[in-house]
Amino acid sequence: MSHLSTLQSSSDFLSTTTIIALTIFFSLLCACIIIGHLLEENRWANESITALLLGLCAGAVVLLASKGNSSKILVFSEDLFFLYLLPPIIFNAGFQVKKKQFFKNFTIILLFGIFGTVISFCLISVGAFLLFNRIGVTSLNTQDYLAVGAILSATDTVCTLQVLSQDETPFLYSVIFGEGVVNDATSIVLFNAVQSLDFNNIDAMISLKLLGIFLYLFFTSTILGVVAGLLSAFIIKTLYFGRHSTDREVALMMIMAYLSYMLAELLNLSGILTVFFCGILMSHYTWHNVTQSSRITTKHAFATMSFIAETFIFLYVGMDALDIDKWKASSASAGTFIAVSSTLFALVLVGRAAFVFPLANFINCIRRRDGSNIAFRKQFIMWWAGLMRGAVTIALSYNQFSNSDDKDTQDSALMITSTIIVVLFSTVVFGSITKPLIEAVLLRHAKPNVSDATDIPSLDDLRIMFIENGEPSDRGENQQAAAGPRRSSLRLLLTHPTWTVHYLWRKFDDRFMRPVFGGRGFVPFVPGSPTGASNEASRT
Amino acid sequence: MSHLSTLQSSSDFLSTTTIIALTIFFSLLCACIIIGHLLEENRWANESITALLLGLCAGAVVLLASKGNSSKILVFSEDLFFLYLLPPIIFNAGFQVKKKQFFKNFTIILLFGIFGTVISFCLISVGAFLLFNRIGVTSLNTQDYLAVGAILSATDTVCTLQVLSQDETPFLYSVIFGEGVVNDATSIVLFNAVQSLDFNNIDAMISLKLLGIFLYLFFTSTILGVVAGLLSAFIIKTLYFGRHSTDREVALMMIMAYLSYMLAELLNLSGILTVFFCGILMSHYTWHNVTQSSRITTKHAFATMSFIAETFIFLYVGMDALDIDKWKASSASAGTFIAVSSTLFALVLVGRAAFVFPLANFINCIRRRDGSNIAFRKQFIMWWAGLMRGAVTIALSYNQFSNSDDKDTQDSALMITSTIIVVLFSTVVFGSITKPLIEAVLLRHAKPNVSDATDIPSLDDLRIMFIENGEPSDRGENQQAAAGPRRSSLRLLLTHPTWTVHYLWRKFDDRFMRPVFGGRGFVPFVPGSPTGASNEASRT
Repeated sequence: MSHLSTLQSSSDFLSTTTIIALTIFFSLLCACIIIGHLLEENRWANESITALLLGLCAGAVVLLASKGNSSKILVFSEDLFFLYLLPPIIFNAGFQVKKKQFFKNFTIILLFGIFGTVISFCLISVGAFLLFNRIGVTSLNTQDYLAVGAILSATDTVCTLQVLSQDETPFLYSVIFGEGVVNDATSIVLFNAVQSLDFNNIDAMISLKLLGIFLYLFFTSTILGVVAGLLSAFIIKTLYFGRHSTDREVALMMIMAYLSYMLAELLNLSGILTVFFCGILMSHYTWHNVTQSSRITTKHAFATMSFIAETFIFLYVGMDALDIDKWKASSASAGTFIAVSSTLFALVLVGRAAFVFPLANFINCIRRRDGSNIAFRKQFIMWWAGLMRGAVTIALSYNQFSNSDDKDTQDSALMITSTIIVVLFSTVVFGSITKPLIEAVLLRHAKPNVSDATDIPSLDDLRIMFIENGEPSDRGENQQAAAGPRRSSLRLLLTHPTWTVHYLWRKFDDRFMRPVFGGRGFVPFVPGSPTGASNEASRT
Repeated sequence: MSHLSTLQSSSDFLSTTTIIALTIFFSLLCACIIIGHLLEENRWANESITALLLGLCAGAVVLLASKGNSSKILVFSEDLFFLYLLPPIIFNAGFQVKKKQFFKNFTIILLFGIFGTVISFCLISVGAFLLFNRIGVTSLNTQDYLAVGAILSATDTVCTLQVLSQDETPFLYSVIFGEGVVNDATSIVLFNAVQSLDFNNIDAMISLKLLGIFLYLFFTSTILGVVAGLLSAFIIKTLYFGRHSTDREVALMMIMAYLSYMLAELLNLSGILTVFFCGILMSHYTWHNVTQSSRITTKHAFATMSFIAETFIFLYVGMDALDIDKWKASSASAGTFIAVSSTLFALVLVGRAAFVFPLANFINCIRRRDGSNIAFRKQFIMWWAGLMRGAVTIALSYNQFSNSDDKDTQDSALMITSTIIVVLFSTVVFGSITKPLIEAVLLRHAKPNVSDATDIPSLDDLRIMFIENGEPSDRGENQQAAAGPRRSSLRLLLTHPTWTVHYLWRKFDDRFMRPVFGGRGFVPFVPGSPTGASNEASRT
């Protein structure tokens, strides 16, 4: 029987390590989905925490099985994360976001996402610089401190968004969600800027230059995303793919979205912003040009891919946390670990508080006449939502501290492990408190039937409906009844600039864009857009 | 402005080579889809040929741009092919196949796919052994010759299946399609067997042992696929995922299908067979247990992924063909290239003819009383359908001849380049003739409205409907009217053993399987199964 065993043992010619790693990962993914489903009603757990804990357990098992030598099955690779896992998540975020709410709160989102992140970055950098010497971490240089600031400014709002509902609290959802996307882009841009700065040749003009670069990146990335989205709409509308095959439409949408990300990265722009705006444009135009089957397929397929990528990342971070080599390399005492981690964590808490509350109150001052104040309760949730740290933090931390040739490896390893502790602690502990906390803060004080005071269909909402020329909008039937007093619209335009922008955009969209690129009203209308209120839409 | 340029040029920290390669590949994929759509009505072109030619052009451009140094953007990797591109194609094949037709012709499919492939393997090996010495290829050993036989026995039926219609010629479609899947599995198993055989210690028992291994692999792989499919059905039916999220259902189906492939590879079984049967079981049970949105999504998402993977492979093969290093390494004259390639190609033609016509006539002899002969015209198309060679051939050829330390590198490179020539020639030339040829052979001689004589809804079809207890079947309404004379069913069972098996299976399925695993009739019925007659179903 020797032949038989020889034949079987070499019956495949793929590398066995890869197959084992993939098998374990996909088994764990399966387990995550099933356990996440079973724990759906549980108030403390959610999918992210399940994946993280399951990853930790699997890492522990591997560590024990290898007798303490290694817990690595796959090495954490930035390429895997930035090239394959992040794009579907961000694209789906843009594709499923409620565009009206998002653009209504666009100013607040930009203020929090850009200005807020920069404040947090400065505070964490300065804080780390002042405090680390006292703990005993001495070998870091200026660039490292600035990098720490950028790394820990990257929030992960997935946990909070899993709890908030896009339908019940649209204002909070759109602001926290939008801030999350802009924050990712801002912190990555900041990180790149820090990495490439020449610290021997620093001058006062540097911050102005940084601002210039940031604005350049922001606008070019957005424009690239918009162009990619419009191009896909134009191609599918002109060539009418549905005539031959639904699959080709879906394939083209997927590939063009991915291509926009790659192209942005190739041009050294922010792929995240590009693919996010590409998603928004695709759901506004392209989605309406495809067949009904393609609409359902894209809506769910993109959400599924994003869901898998998200779970995969948390699983990955969990498994990677027990990397024994890194813990050994840092060779610090438990006290140092705790000191560094809790310092970082305190800086995160303070850094976020330092911009959320001032900025929110600043907005309140400006918008006083609107009567739509951001209550303290909401400010608290906005602060809380950005405390969790996730995969972007880990990926950036690896990039800064892992393959550093000229640096003190001990302190570098300490920084990586401390970052991992911050990520694990914030996700597991803070993540599991999030659901009960938000329920307590929001629902206990909610008026009956209205959980989010800013989002009562207010006078403004009724006003915009007058302006909309009676076209059916998302709200439903009630605006049709109120469409009487049209003569007052000019006065409203003057007193409400936000609505003016929206009104002009709608006019421009209807007259120039939709005839060329398609969109609702210019192709047969089908109920249930990708932003429609379904149970899937509430996941980012 | 020096700061600005420094900052921008390092604004991303991903490896630029990967990004460039991915951008080029995804741009080409886009181009393929659009050109393929535009050429849809063209009788000579199809998607595979477009992708192959586009890949060749891109390779040529890269070759010129690098001034003849390299045409490689991505290296052809067996892992990429066998781990990520092949599984979705085969899974989708199983998911979309018309199960009734497939199992009706199961004996013929196995006969062609296993026995036929072995005949072709023997003939090509012996032919190469006898002829290559005369051409001047002398350094190959016995194992190499046997490997050449296995490599060139792997057919690629994609081109033909793109032309044939599952609705118009169900018999031909299911036989050619089924043979393609079984053939892939057989040739890979043969190839693995050849690679692991100990040629110094060969005896007469070896072929018996090979047969034993093959049967073992075939049955265990099938059982694993069936178990994975049933497990997915059971989990989704029991836990009722749709209650919380459509995306979770879709994710679970995708991941479990992929997991079955990985598990089979891990256990050294045939992943292709496993994932194929997993697809069949999923479309029979699991698909009926999910929400309506999930059904549409899975149907189209799987088809889209398969479509992208297929196009990707052809693009890849096209770009890889101009690999200048390999052409240099072989250092043979144009005459030798042509001689070796045409010898191989002649062997392919003869090797396939040597089993298609004898086996078809053998089946005709046995089934004489049925009146369902395989006409010569159909035999010719079955022969033609298996002449194209594709990605499996290239992948196996690389595996055998690329990283061979102890072999003559010159002849090894010659074998790889000759295989590429055979693949390119057969796909481009034979592929583009396929559509006009099949139209000429099939349609010119077709009776009005019936293009495939074996597939007229025959007496047998009506008989099976009596047996089916009046449950709605795929055919439509007509069988309900004919459901009168039930008393004759026992006699029919005795005279028609195939139907007996089908009848017993249906009874077993209805009584034991469907109550546990779900399936049509045990969940709310929805028209349009994944095997339904749509324009997507005709693509493998």
